[in-house]
Amino acid sequence: MSVTAASGFRAAGVAAGLKSTGALDVALIVNDGPLSAAAGVFTVNRAKANPVLWSEQALQTGSARAVILNSGGANCFTGAFGFQTTHQTAERVAEHLQIGAIDVQVCSTGLIGTGDETFRQGVLAGVDAAAAALVASDAAGLRAAQAIMTTDSVAKQAVATGTGFRVGGMAKGAGMLAPGLATMLVVITTDAVAESEVLDRALRAATRVTFDRLDSDGCMSTNDTVLLLASGASGASADEAELTAAVTAVCDDLAEQLQLDAEGASHDITIEVRSAATEDDAVTVARSVARSNLFKAAIFGNDPNWGRVLAAIGTTDAVFDPYAVDVTFNGVRLCHAGTPDRPRDEVDLTPRATHIGIDLFAGDATASIRTNDLTHDYVHENSAYAS
Amino acid sequence: MSVTAASGFRAAGVAAGLKSTGALDVALIVNDGPLSAAAGVFTVNRAKANPVLWSEQALQTGSARAVILNSGGANCFTGAFGFQTTHQTAERVAEHLQIGAIDVQVCSTGLIGTGDETFRQGVLAGVDAAAAALVASDAAGLRAAQAIMTTDSVAKQAVATGTGFRVGGMAKGAGMLAPGLATMLVVITTDAVAESEVLDRALRAATRVTFDRLDSDGCMSTNDTVLLLASGASGASADEAELTAAVTAVCDDLAEQLQLDAEGASHDITIEVRSAATEDDAVTVARSVARSNLFKAAIFGNDPNWGRVLAAIGTTDAVFDPYAVDVTFNGVRLCHAGTPDRPRDEVDLTPRATHIGIDLFAGDATASIRTNDLTHDYVHENSAYAS
Repeated sequence: MSVTAASGFRAAGVAAGLKSTGALDVALIVNDGPLSAAAGVFTVNRAKANPVLWSEQALQTGSARAVILNSGGANCFTGAFGFQTTHQTAERVAEHLQIGAIDVQVCSTGLIGTGDETFRQGVLAGVDAAAAALVASDAAGLRAAQAIMTTDSVAKQAVATGTGFRVGGMAKGAGMLAPGLATMLVVITTDAVAESEVLDRALRAATRVTFDRLDSDGCMSTNDTVLLLASGASGASADEAELTAAVTAVCDDLAEQLQLDAEGASHDITIEVRSAATEDDAVTVARSVARSNLFKAAIFGNDPNWGRVLAAIGTTDAVFDPYAVDVTFNGVRLCHAGTPDRPRDEVDLTPRATHIGIDLFAGDATASIRTNDLTHDYVHENSAYAS
Repeated sequence: MSVTAASGFRAAGVAAGLKSTGALDVALIVNDGPLSAAAGVFTVNRAKANPVLWSEQALQTGSARAVILNSGGANCFTGAFGFQTTHQTAERVAEHLQIGAIDVQVCSTGLIGTGDETFRQGVLAGVDAAAAALVASDAAGLRAAQAIMTTDSVAKQAVATGTGFRVGGMAKGAGMLAPGLATMLVVITTDAVAESEVLDRALRAATRVTFDRLDSDGCMSTNDTVLLLASGASGASADEAELTAAVTAVCDDLAEQLQLDAEGASHDITIEVRSAATEDDAVTVARSVARSNLFKAAIFGNDPNWGRVLAAIGTTDAVFDPYAVDVTFNGVRLCHAGTPDRPRDEVDLTPRATHIGIDLFAGDATASIRTNDLTHDYVHENSAYAS
C-alpha cells in the first residue's frame, strides 16, 4: 500500500530512541533496481536543514539507491557537527548496502536545533537496525511510514497504477504546512522504466498542483523533501503523460491526507477561485484567503464571514474588480457583485469539509488551495510543541 | 488629552443605536480654523470601504473642516446604496456646520457588509445629535475616542507638544491589525500653522515608522484611515522637522496603545532586526517573523522557539547568510552563527513585554515591528465576532 507497492523496493521502520515515546523513528527505503533513477524537490526556504543541503547536492547525479529518514530531530541549525551527522548517516547506509554515499538521500524531521551527539548516535544505531530489517512487504512499508510521523496522528500512504507499472508513496506532515513545499517528507517509488529527467519533470508537474497548493498554516519548513525513485523492475517503459498522471494522483492523495491530519484543525477548507485571468492569479487570490487568520478563525466558529474573504483578496495584485466579485460558502452565494446576497444563516458550516468559491469574472483560469481553520487546538498544539 | 488638546477643535461622541449595547457610536471632530489644512493616509487594500472611497477623493483638496466617524458598521461592500449613505452623511454634517460636503471626512468601522437603511438612519441621527453636542473639552475628546471603539477595551488618546503648538490624537483598533495601515481609524489634530503639503509629508513620515510597523495579525483592513488636521489656532508656524517629530510621537504612542489592546493577546512583542543591509530588509525580516503563526503560538506558550524565527526569516529575500545569524529572546542569545547557544531555560517569557533580537550581520540598518502572540483568546474573539 505504500513505497513497497512498486516492485524493486524494500523498506524498514525501526525504533532508535530518538522519540522519547519509544515509537518508530528511523525509516530506510532501498531501491534494488535495476534502475536507480531519481528526482527530488526541496524546500525553497533559505534556512535549509543539513539533510536538505546534503540531499539536494547528492541528487545532482539523478541517481539514488536509498533514502534514510528520521523523526525526533530536524538536524537544522546544528552547524558543521550537524552536517557531519548527515554525512556519517549516508556513509553508514552506504556501507550496509555496499553502494556510494552519494547514492543515499537523507531526510530528517522534528524540532529545529536538535542534532547533538546523542541524536547522531541514535540515528546511526537506527541505520544498523533498519538495514537488518529491510523487507519488500506492505507491513514494512507501513512501518517506514510510521517511523517518519511527528505530530501526525496517522501514517499516510498512497498507491496508483499505470499500464504495467505502479507508483507508491508515503508522507509525513501535520504542521508548518505551506508551499514551497508543504512541510513534509514524502518518498514516492515506481517500478516503471524512466530516466531521471522524466522523473524530474513528472515530479515537478505533480507537486506544483498538489503539495504546493496545500497551505495549512502559512509557515514554510526548513526540511521539506519530496523524492521520486524509479527501480524499472516492472520492465514497463512508462508513457511520460501516464507516469505524470500516476505520480500526480499519489501526490494529490497524500496532500489530501496531510490536510485532513493538520494540527488542531476542525475544518478542511478548499478555496476554489474561478474565472481568474491566469492560473497564477487564481492561486494568489486563493492563497491570500488561506493565510487570513481572521477568515480561518471565523470558519472555526462556523461563521460565514464573507467580508474577511474580500478583505483578504483585496490585498493581492491579481486582475479583478473588487466590487464585481461573487463569494459562495458551501454553495450558498453570500456576496454578489460586491454586495450582500443570500442570508448568512442559509450556510451550514458544521461539516468538516468546507468549500469557498470565489468568482473573479476576469478570465477562464481556475485553481484551488487546500487549507484548514485556525482553532484553539492549533494554538495549543503549537504552543506546547517543544515541551 | 485627545483631539481637543490642540486649540481650534471641538468634538462630540454620542450614542445613535448603531451598537446594540447602546454605547457611544458616532463621533464628530470639527476644525474651527482659521486654517483647514489636512492630510490623510488610507488603506492600500483594493477592497476599500465606501467612506474610504469618499474621503480619499474629498481630501484631494488638501482641506477638511470636519471628520464624522461611526462604529457599529463598516459600510464596506454595501454597493451604491452604501456610497450614497456616506455621501448623505457628509452632506448632513455640512448642513449643520454651513460648510461644503467636500470638507467633511467620513470614517466607519465595524462588520463588513453592514450598511442597510437602518444603519443609514442611525448614522444620520447620530450626526444631528453630535452636531448639537460639540464642545472643546477633554471630556468631549474622550467621548469621541470612546465612540469609535469596536472590540477595543480602552479608548486611545495621545498628546505631544512643540514650540508654541500642540498635537493631539485618538485611535481605534484591536483586530485586523496589519500594515498599509494597521486596521484602525486615527484622527490627529494640531493647532500649528502648516500647509497641507507639510502635513502630508509629516504624516507619511510618521505613519511609515509607527502604524506601518504594527502587524498584530497580518490582516489588512478595508477601512483604515489616518487623518491629520491643522487649525493654525496657536498662531505658531511650526518648523517642519519639529512638527514631524511631534506627529510621530503621537502616532508612536497610539500605535503602542493599539498593540497593548490587541484582541486576545497575552504578549506584546517587539521584533528588532539589527545590522541589516537596508532598512527595508530589516522591516521585511521582522515582518516575516511577526506573521509566523508557529512563532506566535510558541510565544503564547512561553516557549523560546528560536528555530521558528529562523524558519520564518529564511522565507525572505533580504540580504544575509542564514547560517551566520544571532537570535536573542529577552536578551538571552539562544542562537549564535546559526547554531544553538545559551540554554532555552535561561529565557523568562512570562512577562507580557517580549523582545526578539535578530542580528543579520549584513550592514548597519535597523528596524522594529510590533506584534502580538497567537492565543486561544484571539481565536475565540475572532470566531465569535459576528455573533
